[in-house]
Amino acid sequence: MTLPMAVPAQGLPARVRIHEVGARDGLQNEKGTVPTEVKAEFIRRLADAGLTTIEATSFVHPKWVPQLADAEQLFPLVAGLPVELPVLVPNERGLDRALALGARRVAVFASATESFAKANLNRTVDEALAMFEPVVARAKADGAQVRGYVSMCFGDPWEGQVPIAQVVRVCRALMDLGCDELSLGDTIGVATPGHVLELLASLNEQRVPTSALGVHFHDTYGQALANTLAALQHGVTTVDASAGGLGGCPYAKSATGNLATEDLVWMLRGLGIDTGVDLGRLVATSVWMAGQLGRPSPSRTVRALSHEDQDPKEQ
Amino acid sequence: MTLPMAVPAQGLPARVRIHEVGARDGLQNEKGTVPTEVKAEFIRRLADAGLTTIEATSFVHPKWVPQLADAEQLFPLVAGLPVELPVLVPNERGLDRALALGARRVAVFASATESFAKANLNRTVDEALAMFEPVVARAKADGAQVRGYVSMCFGDPWEGQVPIAQVVRVCRALMDLGCDELSLGDTIGVATPGHVLELLASLNEQRVPTSALGVHFHDTYGQALANTLAALQHGVTTVDASAGGLGGCPYAKSATGNLATEDLVWMLRGLGIDTGVDLGRLVATSVWMAGQLGRPSPSRTVRALSHEDQDPKEQ
Repeated sequence: MTLPMAVPAQGLPARVRIHEVGARDGLQNEKGTVPTEVKAEFIRRLADAGLTTIEATSFVHPKWVPQLADAEQLFPLVAGLPVELPVLVPNERGLDRALALGARRVAVFASATESFAKANLNRTVDEALAMFEPVVARAKADGAQVRGYVSMCFGDPWEGQVPIAQVVRVCRALMDLGCDELSLGDTIGVATPGHVLELLASLNEQRVPTSALGVHFHDTYGQALANTLAALQHGVTTVDASAGGLGGCPYAKSATGNLATEDLVWMLRGLGIDTGVDLGRLVATSVWMAGQLGRPSPSRTVRALSHEDQDPKEQ
Repeated sequence: MTLPMAVPAQGLPARVRIHEVGARDGLQNEKGTVPTEVKAEFIRRLADAGLTTIEATSFVHPKWVPQLADAEQLFPLVAGLPVELPVLVPNERGLDRALALGARRVAVFASATESFAKANLNRTVDEALAMFEPVVARAKADGAQVRGYVSMCFGDPWEGQVPIAQVVRVCRALMDLGCDELSLGDTIGVATPGHVLELLASLNEQRVPTSALGVHFHDTYGQALANTLAALQHGVTTVDASAGGLGGCPYAKSATGNLATEDLVWMLRGLGIDTGVDLGRLVATSVWMAGQLGRPSPSRTVRALSHEDQDPKEQ
């Protein structure tokens, strides 16, 4: 196996925290139901591979996301792992369930666009923010850390282009509610590097510091890693990714959704940026999970490294 | 279809020339033989999509690359197109054949490593350079432009890591022979952005100007577009890419080789960088070619855009 030569580039962070979303964002998009014990084993293996922040599940009503209806059963199975285990909480009821199980990191899921707020939450953007206000306040009062997801930051399938000012307004509002961190979601994968840099700079202008910002890119058009590089150059040190690229768009079997953690780790390793992740173990985990799901990982790195036993002349 | 918002980033070129390699580098890796008329139609459609430099074929001995054994028949079919049509010439015999048909741009294919020089050319690196000397000299004397490919610039499947000084030496030698342009090949896809920047800077130190450098990245580990962004930031304006990502590693059906032209055009469009390419026509061309080859394109952009008729809620 030829690994990348580590050659640092100027102006990049020394360390990046990967916010692993495969177990929640990835599995919630699966058609079938994954057994609770398989989910727990997936999270254990991710932790064993060196990931330190592993989003575990969502305390959403089972009616909306039946794939994650086992949150109450799953969370206690992994709560003892020496890693951060954020969970999604759509509302106060979800927060109650999460806190009762001892969750110390929760996340709310906001939208930068009215169309997606309506489709996903059946609310306006401002109604959703109002719904999150007591969630964030009570989580903070309980000592939990709160992440605010902002979806459709770079484009929306109904509205097309999304003005940067509109995204900044929602981000600023989430920070005002008390969120510790935001995750800027390119839900349909249309971001490009200049757009990323402009949004980050605009957020800084509105007193949202880069240290509070994570990026969440989708690889629908193959842009996720280039966008990540731009974000790192701006100083971002929290990057969302999904082991094996889990979370593909269901409309096309082969299309991809989330940036694959392995592709990210490969780049960071080449840049000499510390993540604490063991790439070999992570690939083995994704290959194992692909076996559980019955289809290959869309991650290019997983595919390449899991064929490494070939003679190089055949490549 | 939501296209990327055009948001330029600082320090990037206003225009990029795409050196399209699908018809040569892509098709030479196909197992079956593609009919000559299909190749000609592919090149015509690429030109119609706005590509201006389309590598057409290789005048290599048919014994080595039977897929391109029809170079003599193919070239006249497309020679009248209003685009540049570089062709690969492995030696003087190949040059003779190319010049006899009126080729005005030729390319030689060197290696940065001894292992690949041996495997690909059955020569040492220096023996290969000696073989290219009369090829370059005669091409220049005939008024043709000469490109020098340098493969294995970032890693080698037999040797592992490849010292930058070794790559620089071969590049400098090709420039000394009279090459007008070099193409830095990441043949096994292991490059990362810092490595790219370091090689470019090292080449500049040895008087190889950035204006003479093209980059040729493979997407084996998903790094090609991030590497391209780094190269653009350094000032590179010539980028090799393959329509639809043709040229995948034959060892895994789904693995990819060359950077897909569509993924590149998507990023450049988002960055407001002019390429002259009509993305819709290019995607249609790759979908058509995938039909001819009987398997889907590995390009994420091709896959996503060819499913665009879906309801966004289903995505």
